Amino acid sequence: MSTTAPKGFSAAGVAAGLKSSGDPDVAVVVNHGPDDAAAAVFTTNRFPAAPVLWSRQVLDDGRARAVVLNSGGANACTGPEGFADTHATAEHAATQLGQAGRELGAIDVAVASTGLIGMRLPMEKLTAGVTDAVKALSEDGGPDAARAIMTTDSVPKTTVQEREGWSVGGMAKGAGMLAPSLATMLVVLTTDAVVDPAVLSTALKQATSVSFERVDSDGCLSTNDTVLVMASGASGITPSAEEFTEALTAAATDLAMQLLADAEGSTKDIAITVRNAAGVADALTAGRACARNNLLKTALFGNDPNWGRVLAAIGTTDAAFEADQVDVTINGVTVCRGGAIGDPREGVDLTGRAITIDVDLKAGTDEATIWTNDLSITYVHENSAYST
Amino acid sequence: MSTTAPKGFSAAGVAAGLKSSGDPDVAVVVNHGPDDAAAAVFTTNRFPAAPVLWSRQVLDDGRARAVVLNSGGANACTGPEGFADTHATAEHAATQLGQAGRELGAIDVAVASTGLIGMRLPMEKLTAGVTDAVKALSEDGGPDAARAIMTTDSVPKTTVQEREGWSVGGMAKGAGMLAPSLATMLVVLTTDAVVDPAVLSTALKQATSVSFERVDSDGCLSTNDTVLVMASGASGITPSAEEFTEALTAAATDLAMQLLADAEGSTKDIAITVRNAAGVADALTAGRACARNNLLKTALFGNDPNWGRVLAAIGTTDAAFEADQVDVTINGVTVCRGGAIGDPREGVDLTGRAITIDVDLKAGTDEATIWTNDLSITYVHENSAYST
Repeated sequence: MSTTAPKGFSAAGVAAGLKSSGDPDVAVVVNHGPDDAAAAVFTTNRFPAAPVLWSRQVLDDGRARAVVLNSGGANACTGPEGFADTHATAEHAATQLGQAGRELGAIDVAVASTGLIGMRLPMEKLTAGVTDAVKALSEDGGPDAARAIMTTDSVPKTTVQEREGWSVGGMAKGAGMLAPSLATMLVVLTTDAVVDPAVLSTALKQATSVSFERVDSDGCLSTNDTVLVMASGASGITPSAEEFTEALTAAATDLAMQLLADAEGSTKDIAITVRNAAGVADALTAGRACARNNLLKTALFGNDPNWGRVLAAIGTTDAAFEADQVDVTINGVTVCRGGAIGDPREGVDLTGRAITIDVDLKAGTDEATIWTNDLSITYVHENSAYST
Repeated sequence: MSTTAPKGFSAAGVAAGLKSSGDPDVAVVVNHGPDDAAAAVFTTNRFPAAPVLWSRQVLDDGRARAVVLNSGGANACTGPEGFADTHATAEHAATQLGQAGRELGAIDVAVASTGLIGMRLPMEKLTAGVTDAVKALSEDGGPDAARAIMTTDSVPKTTVQEREGWSVGGMAKGAGMLAPSLATMLVVLTTDAVVDPAVLSTALKQATSVSFERVDSDGCLSTNDTVLVMASGASGITPSAEEFTEALTAAATDLAMQLLADAEGSTKDIAITVRNAAGVADALTAGRACARNNLLKTALFGNDPNWGRVLAAIGTTDAAFEADQVDVTINGVTVCRGGAIGDPREGVDLTGRAITIDVDLKAGTDEATIWTNDLSITYVHENSAYST
């Protein structure tokens, strides 16, 4: 049920003609309250798309009533005209929702877009689509909304985490371009728990830091990444901050793993765990260096347990370790011991989709896991053949 | 004539059976003097291969008499045993060269290796190869040596820079894995100019900083990168430091461009120039971010002038710029102006091999160019199908 699983939300997804395929491309998710607490995490790219600039303003007071999302165009690098387009979209949505009996202004409506950078959106089609979506709003509309935000995704991504009388729901789009801080990825999370805006913001930061921010598919950071959470309070139940953070993290992690599994052209899901690091930052640095090493990623695509490329990647970082201390274990076989030859690489079975790489730095007690994909021929094909 | 173009050098390349193909795989270059000044720049990877550890010691006093190079095995991540193998190689070469009438010790012989990481070298074959190579030493042996250090290179890379009565010669191997600080790349430069070791070292650092270090093919930094220069003084001519640095830089740049043109599986040579940066460091940071962006590189492979991916790449850096000021020009068409839509992308012709991307940061007066390649299907195929 996606974003409409928690009480107090309606959603819709319609085809507005932004995608040449005719597939659904405009989604609306509305919070009917009684609360309107909201929080968001946005891309740290220094060329934030117009909808990111807009939605930052919307979320500034910790409140939002609705979000409009579109695929078929990112509205990024489109200048002041692009920003005006986003503003107009929010304005139009607010008007339409107002006519549907919900009192609100443009500043209550977040916007998120995904698709090709550097192209204006066809505003006539988009506003018509928003009108249609508002008319189609339904308490069962979550799955339709999840489908309308897909780009090169092969499947919609949704989650529901049920707790005692309250729940967290969510949807995500993203396939490839999963990145350092966030992915080219739009995520909407909803909850009917009663959650204070400050708690919501802290919980969201915590949830994304261990989920979306640890998925690094190709090291590219998009201009449009947005993770939005809205709390309706419709369950009347106020979980503790810990309880809520746990549920939100579970929802975010579930969606992050679905994004990883659907990354463009990937044939492997790779979990790189760096253990015994001098700090979590060191573990993350070393893990990311592996996740972004094209030579390692192509080797894994070719079922080659090339541990030398793991060391070469880690060797470019400033993480604390001694070169003659590091162990590397791939799918359970310790192929590198003390920075040198370990057990025979022939013992490593890489034929399955799941690969685990464990790096033991022997420099401390902290650890972290980064998830990534292999670099496949299909990745290159998909990203060269289509403008995204 | 490669490394034997300058007077005072002999070289050879032989097949020792390290490569299963039976192609030449052991090279020796000898400096017959009268001088023995030498300098080197090595990988900054924190897992330096055994020959790098050894050759650092050899070069410590600014002198070297000979270098032994092998393809067919990197001798990296091989522990103390691998270091002993390198030492034994230098010792054996010194003995063989001594029997050939040249008085020298192991500490006068640098070693460089390239090939698969994490495998011991077959020392019996290697030492027999060194014996053969010393016997085959010739003043015309430069081209043979250049062929013997090839791995996935499709052509040997050599250069000669003639000046007034003296010259600089050189050879290089490397194809793909061209990287941040250096490439997986072995380079030997020779000169018959009279050059003080201190001048030689400074000139080499300067030459590599604007040549090999600005070629960033896939962002991966190898364990074995070595650039070695030896000066015989056989011309009797002492150029000024400026004159010598210019010639050495010309030789290094010529080789770097040959490496770029032969990068594994590439179909494009891409020059990314960042102009009007607040400093050279900013220009390099922004240029490298583009050179390492897989989405941009796959787009260029597909002849797609996807300037949004240029901005998205630059947007991840801390270079000084205002997002609404940046211009991007691809092959002469300013497709992005002020961080937004510029001239129509349809006007960009990307069908040729050469691509120029000019980024104007409008934040200062410095500039730098980074060279890279596209990310092609062949790149993935080559790097997944073969262990290197």
